[in-house]
Amino acid sequence: MENDMAKPQVFSIPALKRLPAYLRELKKLQAAGRLHATSPVLARALRIDAISVRKDLEMIGAAGSPGVGYQVEPLIDALESFLGWKNASEAFLVGTGHLGTALLGYRGFADYGLKIIAAFDKGPVPKDTLVHDVPVFDFAEFPHLTRRLQIRMAILCVPDDAAQEVAEKMVEAGILAIWNFTGHTLLLPEDIIRQKVNLAGDFAVLSVKLARRLREIDGCGEDKQ
Amino acid sequence: MENDMAKPQVFSIPALKRLPAYLRELKKLQAAGRLHATSPVLARALRIDAISVRKDLEMIGAAGSPGVGYQVEPLIDALESFLGWKNASEAFLVGTGHLGTALLGYRGFADYGLKIIAAFDKGPVPKDTLVHDVPVFDFAEFPHLTRRLQIRMAILCVPDDAAQEVAEKMVEAGILAIWNFTGHTLLLPEDIIRQKVNLAGDFAVLSVKLARRLREIDGCGEDKQ
Repeated sequence: MENDMAKPQVFSIPALKRLPAYLRELKKLQAAGRLHATSPVLARALRIDAISVRKDLEMIGAAGSPGVGYQVEPLIDALESFLGWKNASEAFLVGTGHLGTALLGYRGFADYGLKIIAAFDKGPVPKDTLVHDVPVFDFAEFPHLTRRLQIRMAILCVPDDAAQEVAEKMVEAGILAIWNFTGHTLLLPEDIIRQKVNLAGDFAVLSVKLARRLREIDGCGEDKQ
Repeated sequence: MENDMAKPQVFSIPALKRLPAYLRELKKLQAAGRLHATSPVLARALRIDAISVRKDLEMIGAAGSPGVGYQVEPLIDALESFLGWKNASEAFLVGTGHLGTALLGYRGFADYGLKIIAAFDKGPVPKDTLVHDVPVFDFAEFPHLTRRLQIRMAILCVPDDAAQEVAEKMVEAGILAIWNFTGHTLLLPEDIIRQKVNLAGDFAVLSVKLARRLREIDGCGEDKQ
């Protein structure tokens, strides 16, 4: 099993998104005392085909043996290394409104090695403010704390109309990756890594489709369900 | 302004996702006492071009007047009707682990008319259990409560390996739209509306890209930032 991490590669986003599912499945197999996992076994668990499994795992540099499959423990190691989840990723969160507070309270982040070590809000923030045990500081302190603690990842939960300005200040401070939970699409230098979760937008799609579906049902005079 | 809601249409998903941003912007203009909004004004706020604004609003049946733009209040009405956000959408949430608990505590849902009226978990659930003031019931009660309260939308936050089974039971009970917060891609009848938020998957993408970026920086011996 070889993990050629130095070579720049183009990764498939759907494949990257499947990696946590592999990890979870392999940990279940490990807990059950299994030493090997074949691609058909992993394929069934992830509800994809075995060829995709082999391609996904090839991407992280893992190769199985014919008839035996992958060794469970080394594959877990390789996945965790590849994901950078072996050591907790430290991040700052900015915006302690409803969503920021909910995210600070979400203990599931720890499962994938994300540790939010501080939160920020626009000042004045009373001294010793904690939200779900995470210390909250005035955003004015963001730049020097980012540099001092060498934080590279930030979670953005400010109101939409502040998103662009706050994101620009994050980048100035040295943040390289932004997990954007606002509805705003950020305009930033292209080497800044971004991932967007737009809950209001997703809910809009769901609502409009559901409203249309309910009209169809009414229109037909029968419940297709 | 005409809203031909009965005609089946194909909607653009990016446009649907922008509707909450229009609504937010229009409410700000309304609060500032403005009666009209032109497409260039809305375009600047959303950081898209004015032609896209006109196309987006045409989708919901709204037309502006040349030189004057859109009437703010009727446009807010039309958006809220289109989104089905005029009356709160009632939903059930299933799975009160870390993520489900965080979502139950997220008060921002109320801003877009989503009301989670009950939560469910696998039994036994002690009587009178509340999580963030929302009553929690044994999932065994899901089918009859869904029918009795005519709930059509459910939020799925169970562990990934339970997601498919729970989703199938939701559909049997009459749920038409599922907001899926698990990492599992659901296999369901195609007329069931789905929207997926995969936090672990998104974080995987962010982590891998950041790890690669940090290697590049190390490799160059200089910080491009």
